[in-house]
Parts: sequence; C-alpha cells; structure tokens
Amino acid sequence: MTTYKAPLDDIRFVVRHMANYDQIFDKIGNDDLSWDMVEAVTEEAAKLAEQVLAPLNETGDQQGSKLIDGKVVTPEGWQAAYDAVAQGGWVGLGSSTAYGGQGFPEVVAGSVAEMFQSANLAFSLWPLLNQGAGDAILRHASDALKERYLPKLISGEWTGTMNLTEPQAGSDLAAVRTKAVPNGDHYLISGSKIFISYGDHELSDNIVHLVLARTPDAPEGVKGISLFIVPKYLVNADGSLGARNDLRAISLEHKLGIHASPTCVMSYGDEDGAVGYLIGEENRGLEYMFVMMNRARFEVGLQGVSLAERAYQKAVAYAKERIQGVPFNGQPGDTIIKHPDVRRLLMHMKSQTQAMRALTYWGGAQLDLAHYEDNKTRRQSVQADAEFLTPIIKAWCTERGVEMTSLGLQVHGGLGFIEETGAAQYYRDARIITIYEGTTAIQANDFVFRKTLRDEGATARRLLAQWKEDVIGYQDGRLQDGKAKVLKSLDHCDAALDLMLKRAKSGPANVAATAVAYLDVWGYAIGGYLMLKAASIAMAQQGQSDANTDFLKGKVACADFYITHILPQVEACLSIVLDGTDAVWGLSDDQF
Amino acid sequence: MTTYKAPLDDIRFVVRHMANYDQIFDKIGNDDLSWDMVEAVTEEAAKLAEQVLAPLNETGDQQGSKLIDGKVVTPEGWQAAYDAVAQGGWVGLGSSTAYGGQGFPEVVAGSVAEMFQSANLAFSLWPLLNQGAGDAILRHASDALKERYLPKLISGEWTGTMNLTEPQAGSDLAAVRTKAVPNGDHYLISGSKIFISYGDHELSDNIVHLVLARTPDAPEGVKGISLFIVPKYLVNADGSLGARNDLRAISLEHKLGIHASPTCVMSYGDEDGAVGYLIGEENRGLEYMFVMMNRARFEVGLQGVSLAERAYQKAVAYAKERIQGVPFNGQPGDTIIKHPDVRRLLMHMKSQTQAMRALTYWGGAQLDLAHYEDNKTRRQSVQADAEFLTPIIKAWCTERGVEMTSLGLQVHGGLGFIEETGAAQYYRDARIITIYEGTTAIQANDFVFRKTLRDEGATARRLLAQWKEDVIGYQDGRLQDGKAKVLKSLDHCDAALDLMLKRAKSGPANVAATAVAYLDVWGYAIGGYLMLKAASIAMAQQGQSDANTDFLKGKVACADFYITHILPQVEACLSIVLDGTDAVWGLSDDQF
Repeated sequence: MTTYKAPLDDIRFVVRHMANYDQIFDKIGNDDLSWDMVEAVTEEAAKLAEQVLAPLNETGDQQGSKLIDGKVVTPEGWQAAYDAVAQGGWVGLGSSTAYGGQGFPEVVAGSVAEMFQSANLAFSLWPLLNQGAGDAILRHASDALKERYLPKLISGEWTGTMNLTEPQAGSDLAAVRTKAVPNGDHYLISGSKIFISYGDHELSDNIVHLVLARTPDAPEGVKGISLFIVPKYLVNADGSLGARNDLRAISLEHKLGIHASPTCVMSYGDEDGAVGYLIGEENRGLEYMFVMMNRARFEVGLQGVSLAERAYQKAVAYAKERIQGVPFNGQPGDTIIKHPDVRRLLMHMKSQTQAMRALTYWGGAQLDLAHYEDNKTRRQSVQADAEFLTPIIKAWCTERGVEMTSLGLQVHGGLGFIEETGAAQYYRDARIITIYEGTTAIQANDFVFRKTLRDEGATARRLLAQWKEDVIGYQDGRLQDGKAKVLKSLDHCDAALDLMLKRAKSGPANVAATAVAYLDVWGYAIGGYLMLKAASIAMAQQGQSDANTDFLKGKVACADFYITHILPQVEACLSIVLDGTDAVWGLSDDQF
Repeated sequence: MTTYKAPLDDIRFVVRHMANYDQIFDKIGNDDLSWDMVEAVTEEAAKLAEQVLAPLNETGDQQGSKLIDGKVVTPEGWQAAYDAVAQGGWVGLGSSTAYGGQGFPEVVAGSVAEMFQSANLAFSLWPLLNQGAGDAILRHASDALKERYLPKLISGEWTGTMNLTEPQAGSDLAAVRTKAVPNGDHYLISGSKIFISYGDHELSDNIVHLVLARTPDAPEGVKGISLFIVPKYLVNADGSLGARNDLRAISLEHKLGIHASPTCVMSYGDEDGAVGYLIGEENRGLEYMFVMMNRARFEVGLQGVSLAERAYQKAVAYAKERIQGVPFNGQPGDTIIKHPDVRRLLMHMKSQTQAMRALTYWGGAQLDLAHYEDNKTRRQSVQADAEFLTPIIKAWCTERGVEMTSLGLQVHGGLGFIEETGAAQYYRDARIITIYEGTTAIQANDFVFRKTLRDEGATARRLLAQWKEDVIGYQDGRLQDGKAKVLKSLDHCDAALDLMLKRAKSGPANVAATAVAYLDVWGYAIGGYLMLKAASIAMAQQGQSDANTDFLKGKVACADFYITHILPQVEACLSIVLDGTDAVWGLSDDQF
C-alpha cells in the first residue's frame, strides 16, 4: 500500500515566496483569491489527493481501462473519484468565472494539478484535458459554441479531449489527413486519430472532442488545418443531449504505464461523417491548438514534479523502514536511510524535485502575470519570459522526472523490480512524459530557434541579467560558495547563447544537433539560481517567530546539495554545445 | 516483430584488437582455440542468437513464466531453445575441458553471452547461472561432488542456481538464517530463499541449487555461512536420479521485466529437511560465493552492453523506416534518422555501447590473463587489474545500459510507450541490472574501499600511468584533440583518487557519500581511453588491403562522439567528489 502526503510546506513556500503570489493577487484584484483562500484550497486539494485519488493509483494500474463490447470500462473507484473531482469544482479552479470557473491563477491551479497528478497521474489526465479544451474554446470559438460547451467542461460534467495525432502525423501535424466537409451549419468529419487520452469512457454524459482536420480546399501543410468541436453526443439547442455522433473508440493501446488512462484509437465518420463545429476560422486550427499546447506543456512539466515527488516519498518511506546491514558510523538495526548512498539518492530526489517545483511554479506565475498585466510593454515582456521558460519546463522537468523515478526504484533494491512494491509503476508511468505534448527534441528546437534565436537572444540576456542581479544581491555570508557557482553557471548560459547565435549562421541543422544540451545548460543553471534563491529566502525567514525552522533549514540543505551534485551538469552540457556539433554527423546512414 | 543482428564486426574487433586475443591464445597454448576457431564460434553463436533466441524474446515477455499446480511453466518455445543451447555445447564454452567444457577463454565466452543476452535476456540467465554454479563447484567442492555434478551442469543437461537472498538478507548476507544440520554424509537444509532466478522449471531433468546456510554452531555474521549443493532430485552413485528432494518453488515474483525468467521464492525443508552437500569447508561459504559473484558481476556488466546493443538496433531500424516531418537540410519523405536529435540519440547509443563493450571485454581478457599467467608477479598484477575493473564494469555498464534503453524508447516517440513496439520491454528488462549481483552503491563501495584504498591507490596509479603512456603514444595527428581530452580525464582520475585517499582519514562514511560519483569518474574516463584506443587502431588498419573501411571509419566517428558528448561527465562527477560530501548529510532523518 502506497500513501501520498501532499508537500504543502514546500508548495506554499514556492507559491508565495518564489512565485510571488502577492504580486499576482495585486494584479487580479479579486479578494476571493486572497492568500487565505489559497491556503484553504490547497488544504482541501491535498485531502482529495491523499484520500480519494492516491488509494486508486495502484489498483488503477493493475486493472487498467478496457474496451468491452464497444464501451470503455475504467477501473474500480474511477467513477466515484470522477464525481468527487467534478462536484468539488476542481476542474474549473483556474477557469474563467464567466463560464462557472473559480478564476484562480495558474500557479494555484498548477499546485492542485501537482497534487492530483502525484496522487494518480492516470486519473488526473482528464481534468487537464478539460482545461486545455476549455482554453481553446474560450479563446477562439463563437459565443454560441462557448455557451453550449464551456460550462459543462468547466464544471466537469463533460470531459474534453485533444485529437491531434494520426498514424502518419505525430510530431509533424502538417501530415494530418482527417477530413472535414462543410454541411450546412456544421462539417462532417471523417478519419482516424490515435493516442487519444480519455478518448472514450462512461464517466460523463458527454465527451467534447477537439479535432484537427482539413477542409476540402485547404492548402497543404500546417496552414490548411482547422479545429473542430466534435461531441460524442450532439447537443440540442436547449442543452439537452441528442443523437450519438458518428465516432467511436475502436481500440485501446496496451501501454508501458498510465494503464488506467484509456488511450484510444478513434474513428470518425465510419457512417455518414461525424458532426463537427468549426472553432474560429478555417485553416487556423494549428494556431489555436498551440494555445492549448503551451498550457499543456506547462502541465506536463508539472507531471515531472508530481512523479518525482511521489517516487521520493515512497523511497523515503522504504528507507526509513528497511533494515539491512550496519551503516558506516551506524548501529546494527539502523534503517537503510543511514547508508551514505541511500541518503545521497534521497537527497538528490528531494533537491531535484524542489528545483523543478520552483521552476514550474515560477513559470506558471509568469503566465499569470502576462494574463493580468495591463501595461502592454510589461505584458509583452512577461509573456516572453513565460514562453521562454515553457520548453525548459516541459523538457527539463520531464527528463529529470523520469530519472527521479529510476532513483526511487533503486532505493528499493531488488524489491523495486517487483511490481507489488509500487516503485516500478512510477518508473513506467513517467516514461511517457518526455514524449507527449512534444518530445524533448521538439522542446529543445522550440527553445533554441523560437525562444532564443528569433529575438537574437534579447529575452535570454534580459533574464540572465536579472538573475545575476538577484544572485549578487543575496547577502548571507553562508551563500558565498553557492553564489559563485550559480553565477558561473549563469555565465555558462551566456556562453552557450553566444555559441548558438554564432552557429545559427551555419544553418539550423548544426544548431539542432546540440539543442537538447543547450536547453539543459539553461535548465540546470536556472535550477541552481532558484535553489539559491530559495535558500536565501529561507535563511531570512528563519528568524521569524512563526518560522518552521526544520523546513527552512531543509531548503538550505537541499540548495547546497543541488549546487554541489546537480549543478555541475551545466559545464558538461556546455561542453557538448561547444564541441559536439560535428560528431552528430560523423556517420552516414549506412554506418548506423 | 523485432530482429537482432549480432554485431560481429565490433565484437571481433574488440576481442582481437582491444582485448588482444592473440596474447591470451599464446598463454593458453591450445591450438583448438585459434582465432579461426573464435571466428567460427562467434559465427555460430550469432546464428543461434538471431534465429532461435531473439524470436522468443517478445513472446516470452508477454507469456511470462507461471507457477501452475506446483510446476513452473516457461513460455512457448523455451524448451526447444533450451535444447538447442544445451546440445550445441554452448553452456560449457568457457568451462574446464576436464569436465566436458570447451575451455575457451572468458573473453570469447563473454562475446557469446553478449549475443545471447541481446537476443533474449530472460532466457539467457540460466546458462550464466550454470557457469557460476559450475565455477564454485570446480574451485571448491570435493572431487566426488565435482564428478557427480559438474559434467551435467557444463553440458547443460541440468541447470544451476544461486540461493543467496532471504527476505531480511539482501545486500547484507550476514543476515542469512537458512539452517544446515549435519546428518551423516550430508546436511539437512531448511529455510526460505527469495529472488531465485530459474529456481524451478521443467526444462531440465534436475536443478543444482547452490545454497548459503548456517550450521548449528556457526559464528554470527559473514563468518558463519556455508555453501551447499542441494539438488532438486537426489543423485545416485551411478549418476541416475533418485528421490525428489525436500524443496520447492512456492511462488513466482511479478516483475517489471524479464518476465520469462522464473524468479522463485524457494522453500527448503518443509518436511524433514532438504538433503544438501557441503562445498569445501564449513563457514567459508561466502568466500566461495564471491568467486561466483565476481564472475557474475562481469556477466551482468555485459548485460548492460547486450541491452544497449539491442535497444540501439531497434531504434536504428525504426529511425530508418519512420517518415515524419522534413528534417533541417532534408527533403520531404526523408526518414527521421535525418533529424539532428534522432541522429544524436543514435550516435550516443552506438558510441556508449562500443565503449561498454570495449571495457567489459578488456576486463574479461584480464580475467583470462590472470587465469593463464604462469609468472606469479605478473599474475598478481593482472589479477589486481581484473578485480579493479570488475565493479566499474558492473556499475557503470549497467547504469549506462539502463540509460541507453531509455534513449532507444525515446527515438520511437509515442510508439515507444506502446508495449507492442518492443522498445519498452528493453527498458523494463534493463531496470534490474543495476540492482542484482550487488547494487551500484555496493559496487562503488567495493571499488573505492577494496579496489583503490586498500592498496593506497597502487593499482589505480599503475593503470593510470599505463593508459596515459598508451594515449601519448597514439601518433595520428587527427587524434590530437581527443588525446588532450582523454589525458585530462585520466588526470581527473588521479585527482579523484587523491581526494579519496585524503578523505579516507575522516572515516568511511564520507568516502562512501560520493563513492558512486568516484566510480563514474573512472568509468567515463576509461570509456574515453578505450574509445580513443579503438580510433587509433582503426586508423592504423584503414590502409590494410582487406580493411572494412566503413566500419573502421565508424569507430573513429564514435570515438569523436564519445569524447565530445559523453566524456564531459568526468568533470561533472569529479566536481561531486570534490565538493559534494557534506551535502549528503545536510538533513536529519526527520527532515526527509
């Protein structure tokens, strides 16, 4: 039996002090979203995660979702958990109040998502999809479509999906072939989609599919793709459900992990064509989808935090319980947490997880500031910051998340390899996160080409200058060593940027050859900056009367670990960016 | 359908030119083991691996082994494959000719093990166990026991097991509780053992269990453990099988990977006690077991090579077939191998795999030289080399092997997460190899305490001096950059050793705190040395009339990749050894 305890101390520390919640609250100007409310919301979310979602994680994995007589059967307990999440108003926590949401900023909604995903990743994909589908509809659909679909998506009465991938169109959506033929006030959709999470199930009365398809005269490639709402059941003018639409899940994938999440192969229009409603204008579907995608990438980055946290908690629990051998400097009967390398593994997991949490929440805060900022110049600037951080959040936090689940398994020794222990599930579940919503390579290309080269490094330089200024400002003498190391790492970001700016002249292939290492230079360096910042804040807080001294000292210790054990990766990655381009092209295809 | 093609070019290059087969052949002085014979043997092994073992890998994973009505049922095809391996004489390839083996050196037997394990790891565990059990019996058992058990183990008519682990005795064998009570010419064994690979099955007529147990008056701890032969069926004086012994598999583990390998919970002596025969002397069992263990650690290191190679081949095949997007500098319709980051991943896998192969085979060759060397001083020296390399081979090659299976999965994108693709199986199968036969931490402690501190760094310094001399001797001008980088890495080994020698004075816990990073400094640096050596040899061979130029140029390109993309880890790991000790102890138990 695995348990999960929401790390509220660290979540609140990060939301309030690292992501500057007060600043966001000031911008929003809604008293219902005060810090007290955030504390209450996170408290309640923690209970739901711990008591309702976490206990279903293992059984969900064992039972999986199944397609039986054309219906998707989710694991035992799924329906009750679904109802609890929907009826608790959790789906619309961060959604617009105009359609029934609660209007909390992303950094708060993200903290809840972290907890839900830690508790049960396979379950928690559907609220995430609802939010993504809701975003796209809110921003781009007609008022009539908004009225009809948004309230039920935001309330969680219905679920949403994203239908992008086709067998020949994965990372490259230009290859989408699904057809949409105009037919009066709607379109008739036909084609196949794969990898559709929660593509079908019986948890809700209806499912709102967002589907990428091509109209008959659409241009080739990415500029000829439109986005449609294709409901499982048609919706009458009065909001009641009408006929079953011409779409179905024809099979479920047999996956390495997240077994309980039904990953469907969807077929649209086997008979006359599925009725679909155009969102916005024709041929702008990919643009709209990318709105969802950026948010989704942020959320998937959070999944790295979620799984690392869960794997860490499990490993700590085991290490505090298992007795094996006599540790150096220890006593017979000591638990394995006293063994140096077990302790190192746990410190690594804890420090890395804190760094990822700080990064994702801080990125979420930039999304919020961009959303609520009135001043156009400041808005554009903070929007650029958020967009700059998104691929790092997605790629770096998912890659590290996968690693952390592996370290967690290692702490368990031979038992880690036994499925009943549960550590293996996190390891399996995690392996999708570096792939879906854009692989690590896709993120790295986005980061280097769109986020750093397009403005010739302007955003990157501005952020680096700010971070360096921050670091130089940390006054506590105990931070001197760490300051020097973090500043050096930030200098390495400058150096990596110089290299890329210069290399861009030799063509994009050479830039892309070390793009992942380039992104990692930034990811590890930002992690160092944020951990040092956390240590500085924690030191300053230790004198306060209500201070949780143990927790705050822990932040300082984790910063020290991060800086000495994890930050050295910056130099290794910089070295690859510096010297590693030609080596990628060293072999002909035949020599592989 | 996954296929496997044995990488005979690289295997032979490494056996002959990196592991200096001719030198071993000279020492053995047996014309039956000429290079021509090695070529013939590897050719035949490749066929068996490709045609018989590889096709069963996926179905074996899907079906798994099951315990049905008290009998272990292995997957379809297992019996035919078993017979092919046994009847082909493959089990005893490296075993003593005195008992029916073929007497090939370890480096050749290892090359065959690499291929078998690449083809089907779950299957290929039993020949490995036969070899281990055979070794222990050959070295330590009485002539009568040898006569009775060795020929059948070496022929593969029977299988062998290693029974070490008990629920409370994993890494710490001092905690073994299984009892052995003297009873005439034998002992009566009773107790439970867990994680027993191939602990029961119907593939062979008999199973020879090697069991660690305590006699009634044995001292506490590691000095009171004895080693016993406990056959599934008793063996009569004439070699015929007698009564069923009092032992059974009571359950099979439900594991993350290697599903087809039956991992048994064994119960001995539920009735009167299982009949067991003492190997050697009482209370020396652990010492004997470590003979098997060192060999087994070498073989498990090889499993890292095997799985990395198989994952690499699968990823290359997919990358050459899958069309997606238009690569930078590419054409529509190009396959994804043209995409820079896919190419980088494949280069990484290929280069890392070659480095691991060079290291393991070279380590195997040192075992051979130690075995066949007549001169005592030289033998002790080369034995020390082999023992020095063993924990690096086990830890570094398995950790990197796990990573390579993850990269291979990544190349497949979303399909990598789908079980039917097959990439996920390697990822699952691999995850045990950093754990069994001693975790990475156990290897790192062995390496730092026994292999480098015990002789105050003498072996380490001697090897470093030799490697530096070799590197300085490489004449080709194209190697200048690589030489400088590799020499710097070898200097970093010296620096890490200096640190550890100094730190040892502050007690073992501080040494152990960064022992894994210390081992990794060496692992990555030796990989660099060996890749450069391979490049140097390959350059020299390119002019020869019968040269496989494409292959040889590929060796140079992989060395370049290794040195620019992988070798930078040496500095990152050194940095941890230098600065990371205190940080491991930064939190109290309660703060985790």
